[in-house]
Amino acid sequence: MAFHLLKRDRDGARHLAERLLEAVERIGHCDRCRTLTENRLCSICLDPSRDRSLLCIVETPADVFAVDQATVFNGTFFVLHGHLSPLDGIGPEELGLINLEKLLVSGELSELILATNTTVEGEATAHYISEMALRNSVRATRIAHGVPLGGELEYIDSGTMSHAFSGRKEF
Amino acid sequence: MAFHLLKRDRDGARHLAERLLEAVERIGHCDRCRTLTENRLCSICLDPSRDRSLLCIVETPADVFAVDQATVFNGTFFVLHGHLSPLDGIGPEELGLINLEKLLVSGELSELILATNTTVEGEATAHYISEMALRNSVRATRIAHGVPLGGELEYIDSGTMSHAFSGRKEF
Repeated sequence: MAFHLLKRDRDGARHLAERLLEAVERIGHCDRCRTLTENRLCSICLDPSRDRSLLCIVETPADVFAVDQATVFNGTFFVLHGHLSPLDGIGPEELGLINLEKLLVSGELSELILATNTTVEGEATAHYISEMALRNSVRATRIAHGVPLGGELEYIDSGTMSHAFSGRKEF
Repeated sequence: MAFHLLKRDRDGARHLAERLLEAVERIGHCDRCRTLTENRLCSICLDPSRDRSLLCIVETPADVFAVDQATVFNGTFFVLHGHLSPLDGIGPEELGLINLEKLLVSGELSELILATNTTVEGEATAHYISEMALRNSVRATRIAHGVPLGGELEYIDSGTMSHAFSGRKEF
């Protein structure tokens, strides 16, 4: 990209650099959900049509977009910016769980939807947060594990298959 | 493979050809579950430790192995050898659903687990069979759809994400 810009589009490079500087200066984190935003609160947290009693916990701001575009979910989000990883020095404090605790204590939440990744760290993080919810008598749910759409059983890993079986549902 | 056998291992080729002929002659379908077997009934259907009241419906004999190795499922199987596909002339008769109807009517089943692929045809087939189960008052369940283990939300297709959300479970 650098070679292309220097060879053919020096104006474009200047424009890109200015915008990038501007973004670095102006984009911070939403006070409520910690996603990226230019303002104190992000557009989702400010949207009055959103159900603020539903809170979906995700690992990254990109996940906010992914969930928002793919589902009919109409609640709000909380972005951890990572997952618990003691070896890397990432504990509850780094994930903003103190802010989350405040939201839980406030009594405005009816359900926490734990949409962290289905990796080992994501599961551990979901488990930790579910216990915080439990202490505050807020219902905690986990997104379903199972066979992805279009999947052929023969090629599914055994962990997923096992979850798909134990999580089977009434037709 | 053919070149290798003809150049280096003519004995092996002869052995392979004989075994293949033998397999073609001797391997047929299990009378109860339609999987591949040399006998009238397959080893799973004959195993007295298996719970014959649980029947898992799969599309291929390979799926029998996949499910059996990956899960703690201790019931029996029923192999469709395909899925409903009217354009290809594959209807209920070709999938052996007449045999399945007999099993349903016999009253020995308590639950049908529909483990067809999560493709459009697999879903349609599962739906058709669930209605057969309903008519015979047998419980029908579908394996869970959702995010596969180890999956990162950002890269999940929207259909799977939507299913993972609507199928979320209490922690």
